[in-house]
Amino acid sequence: MGGTLNRRAPAILLDHGSGGRASRRLVEETILPHLRNTLLDRLDDAAVLSLDAARLAFTTDSYVVDPIFFPGGDIGMLAVHGTINDLAMSGARPVALSAGFILEEGLPLADLDRIVASMARAAANAGVPIVTGDTKVVARGAADKIFINTAGIGLVPPGVDISGHHGRPGDAVILSGPIAEHGVAILSKRAGLSFASSCKSDTAPLAALVADMLDACPAIHSLRDPTRGGLAATLNELASQSRVRIEIDEAVIPISDAAASACEMLGIDPLHLANEGVLVALVPCEHAAGVVNAMHANPLGRHARVIGKVLDGDPLVVMRTMVGGKRIVALPSGQPLPRIC
Amino acid sequence: MGGTLNRRAPAILLDHGSGGRASRRLVEETILPHLRNTLLDRLDDAAVLSLDAARLAFTTDSYVVDPIFFPGGDIGMLAVHGTINDLAMSGARPVALSAGFILEEGLPLADLDRIVASMARAAANAGVPIVTGDTKVVARGAADKIFINTAGIGLVPPGVDISGHHGRPGDAVILSGPIAEHGVAILSKRAGLSFASSCKSDTAPLAALVADMLDACPAIHSLRDPTRGGLAATLNELASQSRVRIEIDEAVIPISDAAASACEMLGIDPLHLANEGVLVALVPCEHAAGVVNAMHANPLGRHARVIGKVLDGDPLVVMRTMVGGKRIVALPSGQPLPRIC
Repeated sequence: MGGTLNRRAPAILLDHGSGGRASRRLVEETILPHLRNTLLDRLDDAAVLSLDAARLAFTTDSYVVDPIFFPGGDIGMLAVHGTINDLAMSGARPVALSAGFILEEGLPLADLDRIVASMARAAANAGVPIVTGDTKVVARGAADKIFINTAGIGLVPPGVDISGHHGRPGDAVILSGPIAEHGVAILSKRAGLSFASSCKSDTAPLAALVADMLDACPAIHSLRDPTRGGLAATLNELASQSRVRIEIDEAVIPISDAAASACEMLGIDPLHLANEGVLVALVPCEHAAGVVNAMHANPLGRHARVIGKVLDGDPLVVMRTMVGGKRIVALPSGQPLPRIC
Repeated sequence: MGGTLNRRAPAILLDHGSGGRASRRLVEETILPHLRNTLLDRLDDAAVLSLDAARLAFTTDSYVVDPIFFPGGDIGMLAVHGTINDLAMSGARPVALSAGFILEEGLPLADLDRIVASMARAAANAGVPIVTGDTKVVARGAADKIFINTAGIGLVPPGVDISGHHGRPGDAVILSGPIAEHGVAILSKRAGLSFASSCKSDTAPLAALVADMLDACPAIHSLRDPTRGGLAATLNELASQSRVRIEIDEAVIPISDAAASACEMLGIDPLHLANEGVLVALVPCEHAAGVVNAMHANPLGRHARVIGKVLDGDPLVVMRTMVGGKRIVALPSGQPLPRIC
């Protein structure tokens, strides 16, 4: 009866880390109003700065994934791939990474060793050196084992201008591979679920795939990797930033049987689960076939396909379901999946 | 009797975060062997990368200071200033920062708001925008309130070539201002010591001071800000990297009465305490007077003075004490001062 709804929680909730509605609100209401500038306001995966002739991409991500070792990877590998991918999502060729470690007192040195070795392998395989770093230690109980921040810089090739704001009606929505593998791998390891044991994290560096795509079509409009919050969050971000309606087709979204049945048993929408080696592209439709063909030639894009299209209309994501209806794909909200990356 | 000394602890100790001997060993034995490359191996405060014509500096630091609000500043301001300073220590003009937040469930939004506002002010005052960011949330007890990583990029002016490896016998050792203020401010706030209540953190952005110094002498050899581990750790690093002996004179090292007496009462060597708005420079002696004069014209350098000199000899730091003797200034070891920055 006339009571006011306190829209802003007085303290941080786990939900604020979900990659969904609460995350967005935290950034938009508490962080952006202070830090506001034209580069940050774009909220793309990386900022692109012009330095004389060169255009530089710059990005950062902290990794707090729990468990720190999981099927298909570990927190160190994830930190290297994730930041390479954020650079790649601006079309940049990654040049260098930084690594900032926050270590909990009592972390076995053997675990740190294994994680750093994994980062080194991941960086070497992707051809992107880690050139600067920092290590902090906090007392037992003041952090959980290890948190890693990786920042990265990259060079954006001339003529490439990619942003979540550049989607246009008529664009094809391309997805590079099967969804939900990372999220299922983490959740099943956490819960000790044996039925999902064939699911491994898809963690992988996507820069070479993006380079192949740009060779086929330098005019790609938008690229984004659907990590925290999954495909649902990413498509909603793109729809919102580009002020377009996005329609996708459930029947053509690739997902493994193992991931699909794990999601069913867990009661989780696979569209909400994190991916760490998959990207979404908005591409002018006349170039879509060429881009998909180029992707098929790369192992990380062999399952790429067009999963939908961009339409004129209110910013909204709509999915044609298997049973023939349509449903709105909402941002994940409530029930957070904390520390998925 | 023939027992082996296990030089390598099996788990992370608080000591590994001290900025002293254990920190150095952790980096040298566990992190560097994996990540090894010519840029990272230099262990300067920032890596300098050549991109076509431009030379780019790139650095990262995580901030875990406890308490998050302290006399003279807060964790957000510290994170902005600290990374600006690491860039400045390579002679770079800072161009942009990233901000990565790890938030504990339950952190009051008002605290986050105050911290982010403080970062915004610090960034605006220094003229360095925060252009990209990331926010993660972990469950209550999995982190302590808030950790912030800031990475930064900067442009190194042509002709400037500064590194901890460039100290040469004959160089003057210049210190920009009074030491131990930040460390005393944190420790006294933590311990509720009223006698040190006039000590405030010296947290400040040093890039403009460095620009003034470079105007006076582009041939500055080394710059470093003595943060964690204090002046003792920084001078030892410089001696070790440049393979020189450094001699300093206790009588001319500026320190406030309040900080000096707080250190005496706490039984802590002020040379081991963190500074967040002070720098050390190794400068060819013929340019020392010119550099000090230029520093005096900048509020952050008004107490600058020559505190010693670089000599040929084994890598070692030696201090002529007030009472006329000489003592070796060792790296801090044992008794860690965790979470000082």
